[in-house]
Amino acid sequence: MNIGVLGTGVVGQAIGGKLVELGHEVMMGARAAGNGKVLGFAARTGGKAGTFAEAARHGEIVFNCLRGDVALDVLTAVGDALDGKILVDISNPLDFSGGAPPALSVSNTDSLGEMIQRGLPGARVVKTLNTVNAAIMVDPARIPGRHAVFVSGDDKPAKGKVMDILRGFGWREIIDLGDITSARGPEQFLPLWLRLWSALGTGEFNIAVMRRD
Amino acid sequence: MNIGVLGTGVVGQAIGGKLVELGHEVMMGARAAGNGKVLGFAARTGGKAGTFAEAARHGEIVFNCLRGDVALDVLTAVGDALDGKILVDISNPLDFSGGAPPALSVSNTDSLGEMIQRGLPGARVVKTLNTVNAAIMVDPARIPGRHAVFVSGDDKPAKGKVMDILRGFGWREIIDLGDITSARGPEQFLPLWLRLWSALGTGEFNIAVMRRD
Repeated sequence: MNIGVLGTGVVGQAIGGKLVELGHEVMMGARAAGNGKVLGFAARTGGKAGTFAEAARHGEIVFNCLRGDVALDVLTAVGDALDGKILVDISNPLDFSGGAPPALSVSNTDSLGEMIQRGLPGARVVKTLNTVNAAIMVDPARIPGRHAVFVSGDDKPAKGKVMDILRGFGWREIIDLGDITSARGPEQFLPLWLRLWSALGTGEFNIAVMRRD
Repeated sequence: MNIGVLGTGVVGQAIGGKLVELGHEVMMGARAAGNGKVLGFAARTGGKAGTFAEAARHGEIVFNCLRGDVALDVLTAVGDALDGKILVDISNPLDFSGGAPPALSVSNTDSLGEMIQRGLPGARVVKTLNTVNAAIMVDPARIPGRHAVFVSGDDKPAKGKVMDILRGFGWREIIDLGDITSARGPEQFLPLWLRLWSALGTGEFNIAVMRRD
């Protein structure tokens, strides 16, 4: 499948590399053509390098691996290219302006996932994977047990396709939380994630949802 | 030990009943003397009935099992009685004014746990147990696996005593998240808890924190 990856950081590199490994035609997009991280990705993985707009046009599915504070601006700038496409939103609305640990730039009665869906009404936004670090996103077997990843979105077929990709990454426990407003749940999990990271001294963890037998 | 329980709802009844069962001298407090739920608790368990102020004076440790929207007012009204005591805060700042699912009345850069600690600087506030339903709070073995409960607070000896009580309830995985500001994590977990409750069709679940081997 043709897949676009927007963002060149740790998350974009992990997602893009895994998708290439799984046989997809991946184009990673950066702000500027010739960006060193995108060229490095192409050289290392055999994927393609492009701009944000080129990667958005290339993908039948597009992954938002941008920083939360720039995601909405970049996505709306390439908006038309995303019409009708599945937009997988992995970003977190972290606000470091008040120091560490970061607060959220949007929370409680709204979420970045909803803002992106409102900003791109033609896209089929699915929020997922924002609750684990990049290594676990694409290799959940790093962590023992039936730990969980969540999906939120208004479009059920889009969620189904994203769940197929997640299964390809190795995820066994995928919990559909509901429509895009349910993205508030996993986004507001981040403050607990950050405190756990501090308490455990590692980001190599995830939560499992244990139910009564 | 003499323990006060403020609040007569499902959480107060569960906590109070379990503490009596474990051999403690429990007084449950209500707004008005002679409150039917408090008298019912006393008749059913052998605990004592009182007002908020009487239960606060009675306890060496006091459990805040009040609704989040009234907790701060009630606690500051009985404030002097809590000086130097351990105040176990189980309340959640749920705001149902916008319909279901509820939003939080305080979040992100503050928490109800911190508001209570600021409002009662003489009390030793420990936030815990707010991330599970009342039945699981006092009987974690209802859920299989090594699922977790969190503690947050500025006073380490106070957290240690609360952890002893939690072990008495049956908790095996107790994670100290840090000072009282870390209460933001478990409080902001509630939106995810509410979506999981909706997705799973039951409140009989909890999260386990799975780490890399």
